[in-house]
Amino acid sequence: MTTPSDPVLGRRVMALIDDLARHTDEPGRLTRLYLSPAHRAAAEATRAMMRAAGLAAEIDAAGSVVGRLEGREPGRPALLVGSHIDSVVDAGRYDGTLGVVLGIVAAEVLREDGLACPIEVVAFGDEENVRFPTNLSTSSALAGRYDPAWLDGTDAAGVSLRGALRQFGGEPDGIARLARDPRDYRAYLEVHIEQGPRLEVEGLPVGVVSAINGITRARTHVTGEAGHAGTVPMPLRRDALAAVAEMVGVAERIGATRTDTVATVGVAQVQPGAINVIPARVDFTLDARAPDDTVRHTMVGDILAEWEAIAARRGVPIGVEPFMDSPATPMDPNLVAVFEDAVRTVGVPSRRLSSGAGHDAVAMAHLCPAAMLFVRCRGGISHNPAESITVEDADVAARVLIEALRGLAR
Amino acid sequence: MTTPSDPVLGRRVMALIDDLARHTDEPGRLTRLYLSPAHRAAAEATRAMMRAAGLAAEIDAAGSVVGRLEGREPGRPALLVGSHIDSVVDAGRYDGTLGVVLGIVAAEVLREDGLACPIEVVAFGDEENVRFPTNLSTSSALAGRYDPAWLDGTDAAGVSLRGALRQFGGEPDGIARLARDPRDYRAYLEVHIEQGPRLEVEGLPVGVVSAINGITRARTHVTGEAGHAGTVPMPLRRDALAAVAEMVGVAERIGATRTDTVATVGVAQVQPGAINVIPARVDFTLDARAPDDTVRHTMVGDILAEWEAIAARRGVPIGVEPFMDSPATPMDPNLVAVFEDAVRTVGVPSRRLSSGAGHDAVAMAHLCPAAMLFVRCRGGISHNPAESITVEDADVAARVLIEALRGLAR
Repeated sequence: MTTPSDPVLGRRVMALIDDLARHTDEPGRLTRLYLSPAHRAAAEATRAMMRAAGLAAEIDAAGSVVGRLEGREPGRPALLVGSHIDSVVDAGRYDGTLGVVLGIVAAEVLREDGLACPIEVVAFGDEENVRFPTNLSTSSALAGRYDPAWLDGTDAAGVSLRGALRQFGGEPDGIARLARDPRDYRAYLEVHIEQGPRLEVEGLPVGVVSAINGITRARTHVTGEAGHAGTVPMPLRRDALAAVAEMVGVAERIGATRTDTVATVGVAQVQPGAINVIPARVDFTLDARAPDDTVRHTMVGDILAEWEAIAARRGVPIGVEPFMDSPATPMDPNLVAVFEDAVRTVGVPSRRLSSGAGHDAVAMAHLCPAAMLFVRCRGGISHNPAESITVEDADVAARVLIEALRGLAR
Repeated sequence: MTTPSDPVLGRRVMALIDDLARHTDEPGRLTRLYLSPAHRAAAEATRAMMRAAGLAAEIDAAGSVVGRLEGREPGRPALLVGSHIDSVVDAGRYDGTLGVVLGIVAAEVLREDGLACPIEVVAFGDEENVRFPTNLSTSSALAGRYDPAWLDGTDAAGVSLRGALRQFGGEPDGIARLARDPRDYRAYLEVHIEQGPRLEVEGLPVGVVSAINGITRARTHVTGEAGHAGTVPMPLRRDALAAVAEMVGVAERIGATRTDTVATVGVAQVQPGAINVIPARVDFTLDARAPDDTVRHTMVGDILAEWEAIAARRGVPIGVEPFMDSPATPMDPNLVAVFEDAVRTVGVPSRRLSSGAGHDAVAMAHLCPAAMLFVRCRGGISHNPAESITVEDADVAARVLIEALRGLAR
C-alpha cells in the first residue's frame, strides 16, 4: 500500500469533522438528535461548508442539507454522495458525519477537475431514529418512500415530528415534493465507519460493502414455575432461567455457524429475580442478521426450532413474538466493482464485507444503484465518545471516493 | 396405611389454624411480621389456645409464646415442641402455624394421659426474618445464642427491633434471661409443611427430616464487552450473557448430580439490556444447599472451578463474592429413629428427607437434640396464599407427634 507522506485530504476531512462536532444539544458530550437546535446549527454549518466548496446548497423541507455541483454535460444523471449528521445520545463524531464531509471534500477536489456529470452531496438528518418512531425518514423522502404517518409520531416530550420540523424551519407539506426521479440519478455512494472490528483485525483501512444485512427481531418469553430454591429438588424444577440459558447458547452457536451472520440475545429479564426463588419467567429478545434473506430465515428457523424443543423437553412454555423482518439490501454489483477498482488503484487490498448495521443506503437503494465503503474504526467502537479513526484512513477513504466518482463520471 | 374414618385431630388442627389466620397486618391477605399488631394479636390468641388446652402460658420477653404442662415426675427434662407464628408478606396459613397448633393439640391429648415429663409448646415470632436483619432471633434467645446487635437492626420504616419489641410489650433487657439450661430439655420436635414437592410426588403424608441443609450464597458478576449486535462478528465477541448462560447450565448440572443437593441461579441482571447491544455485564447469584457441609463445599468448588474456566476461555472476567456459608444441621439420630417408629406405628411408610429451607430447629439444635417432621403440602407450594394441606395429613401428623412424645416420655 502506498501512502502519501502528507495525508492532505485526511487532514481536511478531520478538520471539517471536528468543526461539526462542536454542535451538540448537551454540553460536554455529543448529542445531536433530528430537528434539535444542534441539528439546525450543524445543518447550517454543513451548508456553509458545501457552499465554500463551490456547491449550490440548501436545507430541504425534511431538514436534509443538499449541495449540488453541475456537470459539464447537461442532462446526464447525477452522482449522489451522502450520509447523515444526526447522532445518538452521547455519540462519537465520525458516525455519519464522516460520509458527509468526505462528499464535500471529494466535490471540492472534483470541481477543479470539471466533471462531466453533476454531483450531489447530501447530509441526511434522521438516520439514527432516536428521537421519533421513524425509519430512515430523511433518505426515504428523497427515495420517494416517506410514510406521512411519521409526521404524527412524537418524541419523549410529546412533540410531534410535524411540529418539530416546523420549529426547525422545515416544511412538512413539502416532503412529498422531495422525491427524486430515478432517471436523474446514476448512483448513491456512502462512506461510513465500519462500527465493527473486522477491518482492524485484518489491518485494512477500508472495505467495500457487499450487502446491508437483513434483520429479524423477536420478543420472547419462557414461563417456568417459581419455587423455593432450597426445597424443590432439581429433577422436579421447571426453571425458566435454566431454560433460557440453554436457548442463549443455541442462538450463539447457530449465529456463528455461517460467515457474516450474527444472533444476539441482548435482553433477559428474570422474574421474580430473588436469590432464593427458582425463576418463574424470563423475557428475552432475539436479534438475528444476515446479508441474505434466505440464510437469515433459515438461521432464525433453526434457532426457534431448537428453542421450541428445549421448551418442550423442560415443560416450560415459550412465547415468540417476531416484530421485525427487515430484508437485506444487496449493494449494486457494478458499483461494488467500481469501489473495488478504486480501492486497488489507491494501493490497498480490496476486502468485501457485509454491513451489520442499517444505513441511509438502505432507503437510497430504492432510488438508484447504491454502494458503500467502510472505514476502519478503532476497536470497532461506535455510538460512543471513544469512536475514533485515523487521519491516514480518512485520507485513503477520500482518495478511494474521488477515484470511484471519477470512474463513474467517465 | 390405616386412616381413622373421622380425622378428629386433623379437624381440630385445621380449626385452630383457621382461627390464627384471621390475624393479619394487611386486609385481604395474610401478612404477620415479627412484632407487628397482627403478631401481637396472634400471640395472644395462641396463649389463649394453650391455656384452654391446660398449659401455663405466657408471652416472653422476645415475643415468643411459651406454654408448659408439668409432668408427673419432678426434675425430669422437658420435651419441647414448637414452630413459629410470624409469616412472610402475602403468606399461606400453614408455614409455622401448623407446628405450633400441633404442639397445642398434642399437649391437650397428652394431658389426659398424664405424662411423666413436662411438655413445653413454643410459638416463635421471628423465623421468616423478613422485617429485621436477624436470623432466627426468637429461637436463638431460648438457645442462648441471641446476638444483642440484632436489637439495633431497623425495619424498612427505620424502626429499631428494640423499639418495636418495647411497643409490642416485650422486654429487650430480659432477652438474655430467656436462655434455657440444656439439662432441662430432652428434645426439640418441630412439625412443618415440607415447602417442596417430594412427599406429594411419592404419595406420602409425612416424612422425617434427616438434616437441615447448609447454604452457600454468592453474588457474582461477569464483565464482557458491549458492542453493536449487528456489526461485531460472533468470533470477536465477549458476550457477558452468553458466558453466564453457560454458567447457569453448569450450576444446574452440578446441583443435580447428587441426591438432596440443589444449586440455583435466581438473579441475572443484564447490562445494558438492549435488543441491539451485546451484553456487557451480568450480575447474578448462586444459592447452593446440601445436607452435608463437605458435599456442599465440594459442589460449590466444582461449580466455581467450571465458572472460572468458562470466564477464562471467553475472556470475560468473573467476580465472585460469597456472603453466606451456613452449616448444615443434622437432626439427632435418636430422635429421627423415634419419629420413624412413630410414623410406622401410625401405619405410614417412613421416608427420610433433608430440609432445603431453614427452620427454628437450626437454632434449637444448639440447646438440645432436635428433629423435624415434614407434612405434605399441595404442589410443594409455600410462602403463597395457595399453600395447602389436607385435614387427613394434619391428622396423621398429629398422631405421629403424639406417638413420638409418648415414646420419649416413657
